[in-house]
Amino acid sequence: MSFSLGLAMSLTIRGSLIPTGTGYERVDVQVREGRITAMGSDLGSVLGGEEIDADRCLLLPGMVNAHTHSLEVWTRGLIQPLPLELWLAELYDLVPVTPEMVYWSALSTGVDTLLSGGTAVVDHLVLLPEQEEETLAAACRAYQQLGIRAFMAPLLQDLPLPASLPQGGVGREWGAYFRSTEETLAVMRHLVQRFHDPAAGITLMVGPTGIQLCSDDLFLGCVAISKEFDLGRHTHLLETRAQVKLAAEKYGTSAVAHLHKLGFLDHRTSLAHGVWLTPADMEILASTGSTVVHNPLSNLRLGSGIAPVLQYRQAGVNVTFGCDGSASNDGQDLLEAVKIGSLLHNITDPDYRHWLTAFQSLSMATAGAAKGLGQEQEWGSLAVGQAADLVLYDLTHLSLLPYTDPLQMLFWGRPVHVVKHSWVKGQPVVQNGIPVGCDLEELRRMLWEHSQGGHNTSRRMLHDIEAHYRQVMGLDP
Amino acid sequence: MSFSLGLAMSLTIRGSLIPTGTGYERVDVQVREGRITAMGSDLGSVLGGEEIDADRCLLLPGMVNAHTHSLEVWTRGLIQPLPLELWLAELYDLVPVTPEMVYWSALSTGVDTLLSGGTAVVDHLVLLPEQEEETLAAACRAYQQLGIRAFMAPLLQDLPLPASLPQGGVGREWGAYFRSTEETLAVMRHLVQRFHDPAAGITLMVGPTGIQLCSDDLFLGCVAISKEFDLGRHTHLLETRAQVKLAAEKYGTSAVAHLHKLGFLDHRTSLAHGVWLTPADMEILASTGSTVVHNPLSNLRLGSGIAPVLQYRQAGVNVTFGCDGSASNDGQDLLEAVKIGSLLHNITDPDYRHWLTAFQSLSMATAGAAKGLGQEQEWGSLAVGQAADLVLYDLTHLSLLPYTDPLQMLFWGRPVHVVKHSWVKGQPVVQNGIPVGCDLEELRRMLWEHSQGGHNTSRRMLHDIEAHYRQVMGLDP
Repeated sequence: MSFSLGLAMSLTIRGSLIPTGTGYERVDVQVREGRITAMGSDLGSVLGGEEIDADRCLLLPGMVNAHTHSLEVWTRGLIQPLPLELWLAELYDLVPVTPEMVYWSALSTGVDTLLSGGTAVVDHLVLLPEQEEETLAAACRAYQQLGIRAFMAPLLQDLPLPASLPQGGVGREWGAYFRSTEETLAVMRHLVQRFHDPAAGITLMVGPTGIQLCSDDLFLGCVAISKEFDLGRHTHLLETRAQVKLAAEKYGTSAVAHLHKLGFLDHRTSLAHGVWLTPADMEILASTGSTVVHNPLSNLRLGSGIAPVLQYRQAGVNVTFGCDGSASNDGQDLLEAVKIGSLLHNITDPDYRHWLTAFQSLSMATAGAAKGLGQEQEWGSLAVGQAADLVLYDLTHLSLLPYTDPLQMLFWGRPVHVVKHSWVKGQPVVQNGIPVGCDLEELRRMLWEHSQGGHNTSRRMLHDIEAHYRQVMGLDP
Repeated sequence: MSFSLGLAMSLTIRGSLIPTGTGYERVDVQVREGRITAMGSDLGSVLGGEEIDADRCLLLPGMVNAHTHSLEVWTRGLIQPLPLELWLAELYDLVPVTPEMVYWSALSTGVDTLLSGGTAVVDHLVLLPEQEEETLAAACRAYQQLGIRAFMAPLLQDLPLPASLPQGGVGREWGAYFRSTEETLAVMRHLVQRFHDPAAGITLMVGPTGIQLCSDDLFLGCVAISKEFDLGRHTHLLETRAQVKLAAEKYGTSAVAHLHKLGFLDHRTSLAHGVWLTPADMEILASTGSTVVHNPLSNLRLGSGIAPVLQYRQAGVNVTFGCDGSASNDGQDLLEAVKIGSLLHNITDPDYRHWLTAFQSLSMATAGAAKGLGQEQEWGSLAVGQAADLVLYDLTHLSLLPYTDPLQMLFWGRPVHVVKHSWVKGQPVVQNGIPVGCDLEELRRMLWEHSQGGHNTSRRMLHDIEAHYRQVMGLDP
């Protein structure tokens, strides 16, 4: 299946509910050559083409899983309760995977995203050392097969793991990363030249890991590549208290101010987490038009904290949602991320008039994501002229009953298998609840067969850094 | 289907994994006359009876949905973002339901509980005024049909809704509740006499709503009834900041100290929420052996706060999990409640050594629940002599793959339809993923047909109390 096939096909989705912000309307939606060409209460059959009966359905723009690491599917459920810095030591220590496994974990991530209302994914993809090209090729193959829009941000770093911990006044040393900054940037340029192909559904982004594992030169090199090839930017930002300490030590200023100085922040920069930002940081993000990707489940799992999303919105910062990698969630269900990522903030502000409505959450998960990727003119809204990245939900599904407020039920309930059909650029990607580009039974068998099972028992890296972590974070020895 | 039929049946569950706290073992489990009669690595076929192949499965004790209000299924997804006190005003204002609808909402609650790993439910059931007997009969009929253990705590109050708000120095008045305290207690005694039948799966509890809607006389009357009929006790406790203020105004002391003075707290008392307790309150709960039922999702949805569950455990307070009613969650998935109710606390304590392990959460959701109901000698653990309330999870289900740490995957992932079989007292209640006592298609049709749809637009009660709420809670007018 190719991303660009059949764009001439036309389609009319009949009589679906759509949310208006104050209620719901029943509309017909016509799609031609991959775009919404008309919307109205009764469009007739002017186009011919396929007719979809959408009675008792809810039609929404596709949502975006705006931050994940597909490779972590293999370590889903595996790591014990630990904060990010120690969790990462465990993750690094686990058995490496093969390019074939990269394919299956990307397929699994794409399937979970599609079946929970997504039509696009931002994969901050870990690259297998010395197999960078094979890694990216395998993941892209999976996403193209599914027909999902894939934003691929190969994860780049040029510092080793121990560099990610604050020093806390202790002079620590670490070896060099296995590859120099210049070589890393050369690899990235090569990957962009080979794989960046938005028309075919693969859009590359520059994706330095974050301030904790990247030099200034790596950030600057990524900015240069993003300008040369007109790419968006993606990185982790202030996920933990330890990173706040680290930024103060490294830069003598906030991480946000430093990234701004490096020229990394603009209207196509999306920043995963953003849990520990100051009001001054928020002003910088608002003024540069940068986007925070809220990953509520990993922030709980790793004890990182609650991102101040209500404050972000009040400060004019664009916010959207991600699942984060499966080793820190440990699922890839966008509806779950939207539920928890919306309700969580009600405990941070006693005035309920500031709490997110379901319609606001929808806007964040769709138009907000598109904005963060510089795609808001192209898709993310239900409007004539936008690409037909659409999801049709079955309101008669047991998990969406009784019939009350469809959007509140979808976002605040516990929906399961409720996506009836979905489309990317008007092409079907889910039909009758089944991803058209994937044999689910084969996926299941391959995930079982390649399971790594059991625990990592060496815990070598964890033991290397745990005492220092506890000391610098002020925990009892 | 009757709860007590076929207890003589014997059953051997072969080769399932069970968690040990430090890892997993493969065991055979034999069940006879409703109890676990043997567990071992290879039991042979000494009993005859049914054989279940549990290869690639995980066997756990059944969990308990230890606090819900089944009637709220009808208002699932319906109420806008509001704090408890105003949310309740909306709930009260919605269209009343019929006893037939009570049956379907209890059936829905039971089905959701069974399919998410539960084998028992505590239904803090709203009684339809003047139809109390019909209400309870309808709910009990649904639970008995499903074969789930039902703990029925009819919700009693003797004060009207405005009494639930702190006065804040404003002299407010309200009318009498529609029925006197004495009459309410008489109704309750009658319900106990008619419906309390533990051998048939229906165990009544006394369930005064909470300090915000009950007089001391109602609590005292409930204590007397619980002693007379040997019943457990259940109530809401300090769910919101407003209730803390209210308790100070009403009692001049903490709500916990007051309930203790009234004799309400003992080892069979379970208290829903407990978000705003002091260390002194925790000591009282620990010394009386009372149980806190943690309802993480409604506490987020209503902005109530994070119950200090790690502190409860450190103080020796027993804790278990509930979904709470579907109008404040808006689902009834126990695995979701356990996931969020476990991970949420990681952000409350920087020392990850205090964070809940999956095994600790399991113990809370099973043995912890049984203890709160005074049933720990009877069920709640995988041990010879315990009742066979068991759940077998399919570890090859796509949503539990790849195969890593089964319990962490089950509790921290996003499992869906993973219950393969489950039993209550050795009787099958779920077989091959389907509740044996329910036609799901009929349930779906009835939920659709009885849907109340649309919004409550009068908002009469909300308008009556909102200004006062905002004033007393210090919110801008």
